Amino acid sequence: MEDELNEPMLNDMAWDLVQQAVFAADEFRIEIPDPNSYATILDFGVEAEGSLGAGIALAEITLAGQAEVSLTPGSLGEVGWPHVFVTTDSPVEACLLSQYAGWQLTGDDFFGMGSGPMRAAAGAEDLFKALEYREDATHVVGVIESGDFPTEDVVETIAGKCGVEPGNIALLVAPTASLAGSFQVVSRSVETAMHKLLELGFDVTRVESGMGWAPLAPVAADDLQGIGRTNDAILYGGRVTLVVSGDDESIEEIGPRIPSSGSPASGEPFLKIFEAAGRDFYKIDPMLFSPAEVILQNVETGQVHRFGRIEPDVVLTSFGL
Amino acid sequence: MEDELNEPMLNDMAWDLVQQAVFAADEFRIEIPDPNSYATILDFGVEAEGSLGAGIALAEITLAGQAEVSLTPGSLGEVGWPHVFVTTDSPVEACLLSQYAGWQLTGDDFFGMGSGPMRAAAGAEDLFKALEYREDATHVVGVIESGDFPTEDVVETIAGKCGVEPGNIALLVAPTASLAGSFQVVSRSVETAMHKLLELGFDVTRVESGMGWAPLAPVAADDLQGIGRTNDAILYGGRVTLVVSGDDESIEEIGPRIPSSGSPASGEPFLKIFEAAGRDFYKIDPMLFSPAEVILQNVETGQVHRFGRIEPDVVLTSFGL
Amino acid sequence: MEDELNEPMLNDMAWDLVQQAVFAADEFRIEIPDPNSYATILDFGVEAEGSLGAGIALAEITLAGQAEVSLTPGSLGEVGWPHVFVTTDSPVEACLLSQYAGWQLTGDDFFGMGSGPMRAAAGAEDLFKALEYREDATHVVGVIESGDFPTEDVVETIAGKCGVEPGNIALLVAPTASLAGSFQVVSRSVETAMHKLLELGFDVTRVESGMGWAPLAPVAADDLQGIGRTNDAILYGGRVTLVVSGDDESIEEIGPRIPSSGSPASGEPFLKIFEAAGRDFYKIDPMLFSPAEVILQNVETGQVHRFGRIEPDVVLTSFGL
Repeated sequence: MEDELNEPMLNDMAWDLVQQAVFAADEFRIEIPDPNSYATILDFGVEAEGSLGAGIALAEITLAGQAEVSLTPGSLGEVGWPHVFVTTDSPVEACLLSQYAGWQLTGDDFFGMGSGPMRAAAGAEDLFKALEYREDATHVVGVIESGDFPTEDVVETIAGKCGVEPGNIALLVAPTASLAGSFQVVSRSVETAMHKLLELGFDVTRVESGMGWAPLAPVAADDLQGIGRTNDAILYGGRVTLVVSGDDESIEEIGPRIPSSGSPASGEPFLKIFEAAGRDFYKIDPMLFSPAEVILQNVETGQVHRFGRIEPDVVLTSFGL
Repeated sequence: MEDELNEPMLNDMAWDLVQQAVFAADEFRIEIPDPNSYATILDFGVEAEGSLGAGIALAEITLAGQAEVSLTPGSLGEVGWPHVFVTTDSPVEACLLSQYAGWQLTGDDFFGMGSGPMRAAAGAEDLFKALEYREDATHVVGVIESGDFPTEDVVETIAGKCGVEPGNIALLVAPTASLAGSFQVVSRSVETAMHKLLELGFDVTRVESGMGWAPLAPVAADDLQGIGRTNDAILYGGRVTLVVSGDDESIEEIGPRIPSSGSPASGEPFLKIFEAAGRDFYKIDPMLFSPAEVILQNVETGQVHRFGRIEPDVVLTSFGL
Repeated sequence: MEDELNEPMLNDMAWDLVQQAVFAADEFRIEIPDPNSYATILDFGVEAEGSLGAGIALAEITLAGQAEVSLTPGSLGEVGWPHVFVTTDSPVEACLLSQYAGWQLTGDDFFGMGSGPMRAAAGAEDLFKALEYREDATHVVGVIESGDFPTEDVVETIAGKCGVEPGNIALLVAPTASLAGSFQVVSRSVETAMHKLLELGFDVTRVESGMGWAPLAPVAADDLQGIGRTNDAILYGGRVTLVVSGDDESIEEIGPRIPSSGSPASGEPFLKIFEAAGRDFYKIDPMLFSPAEVILQNVETGQVHRFGRIEPDVVLTSFGL
């Protein structure tokens, strides 16, 4: 074994939050399709209606309880619009070790993007090696962005990779085009900034705290439109402030590339970019995925670096206004 | 008995919140004029000073605990101005079955607008028949917008209509021109949108969730001015987003009539409209009463419908700026 | 003894909050340098890193738990910027009897600005005589804005003035140029308005409630720059609404002098003013220290008085943007 395993802090915290969500199932309009299933599947929006409360809970579970999520008034140009606000003093743990949707789950007739702290128990992604973190968990929690429930073979895969019993897995499922699903994606303002920094080779452990907000994307007609809207909410409406330590040169060097406008693909609603790429995600510049405006405050030098700006008109167009 | 009675969910929840408010009476600057009275009367602003905390508590009790209420920074044009923010996943229960001020209470020398879940125990208003809801309660909670305490005959009337003992009634009283009273009226952004939809014949059970905000109206010199300011806060400063299911045609058909600007009476501070109507509420277009801006997001079709816009200048004039 | 002593409400409340902060020390990234010290010293930013959570806790302790403090999204002109929001129904207790930094602590090689409820136990400042308040405390809590830990002689001085054992003193220390330190200074929007009113001879007991917000100043390179940024956050970015009773004449008389723009020194970043005064605080007009915009709402007359306006460009310049 190459690395020492960590205590399952993230999975334990998320597991507790899942129990609270189960307790509030009626209020949250979430469902537990089959309590005797091989794993605990929680329906946050596949067949269940979901709610704003479910959205906050789902977002906080995806962040493993390491961030606070709330709804807040805001505006998009002249239009009043609710925003999702996230603050964290543990941006690496909350966003990269847990919230990032880095696990593509595929099975017989199933596809979903996996996020949440189960990723830290599997530890299969490069970022866990880079950040030297892997949890020794007996119980794991995953959040799946999908319109279908994970099949038994998917659960078996998760159990195998995480080294846990299927009965000790909680999987929370919501499609992009659902109330809680849209909410949880839009809660990724800080996360997308953190992941972009990681991609740019920035030492993300320098980030001490993060605050971010983005407009709550309206539930879409289908998941394709939902992917468009939630991406646009972040790409053209997301604003993030990161508190960092260290030098300024390394920030200025990559700075203009940090926000979404750092990508040549930026400027159009995401679905247009997607269509132009022949609906092939892998042909889209991966550097596109970050908030519209990113501010880095260096606590050591006092320098403040601002990159990018919001484009409310693009967001309004994407939202159908 | 024509309808089956519901469990007293709304009154029970509100009753619990009243107990918490009693416990925090000093902090909230509210008073219990006569603890041995025929009913529990809580003074939130008649003779008591009240507070911002009392305003939040009063608003949440009026909403029967089915919504969350908070203060939030905001602006009116160039002027910084606190706003009251409301979110709910139970807009029918919170706003129509509880918060709507649908019960005119009159007695010997007494007049007050009654709201809160006691209305659901009385079940006398048309909307309870339309929504097929009536609570079988032993304890009821009402909120009364009035400058006087309800007289014994008013309490007897409430007891009779609700089918409860007078000793099991809690009545929270605040005039419009008081800190908590102004706060609770301005917390009606989502409610006024819901009630307007009901008036327009829209199936309000299609509304799954609501979010709204409006500027906190400054306490007025008297209740007349208070009614003007609190109405203007909603009519020209209120912004509401509703999450709905169903078709889009029924929304588009009534759409432009949903916000306050849908009424020909709209455009002037409310007191001017009131004076022009000879100070007779019943001569004012009932379609005036709704927020300035109402957005409906259809979760089934992905369509977003926006109607109306805020008029900060009218609000500022109304507030004396 | 000239005055009767009050129950130690403020120090007791703050003491409880300190215990909670100790419990959350890891999460808050605060440290207790020497648990066996002569007093309980909590490091919120001298050597400790601190956090946003520590900032909220420090602010609420400085306010003796008589106010609520939160982070909220906002903007400075075109730039998205988090703000610190404060609301209180006890503005005299929270802001003047506790939060105001009225105690200059000096010792062998030590200087720090002392705030928090320990001031109410010492009762040495003029404002305690004017407001007829002094606490008979056995345990006291102080917050010190300094880059050094208080020396033993400073603790002895505090013990003597407050009439308590050194072991019963909790001192929370953070320099201006630290995350929690910057946060707590910027939480002084309502306090600076209250203190300015006191300086102008206004009867501050007329203020029933207060709400205020100001941009969270980015951590500075050093305390001098930090003093500049945190002052500018309030002077040019702070917005405060006060709910008052009484007459309007006394308000209008002093009105234009209430906001920072009431001082001829206003208009430039604070450090420029400081330099122009030969880096001598006592040569700066004391009337400079108040928020950019102050609104007084008179609950008795319904009059609303607005003075001053924010200057986002000055704030952005001060923050290095």
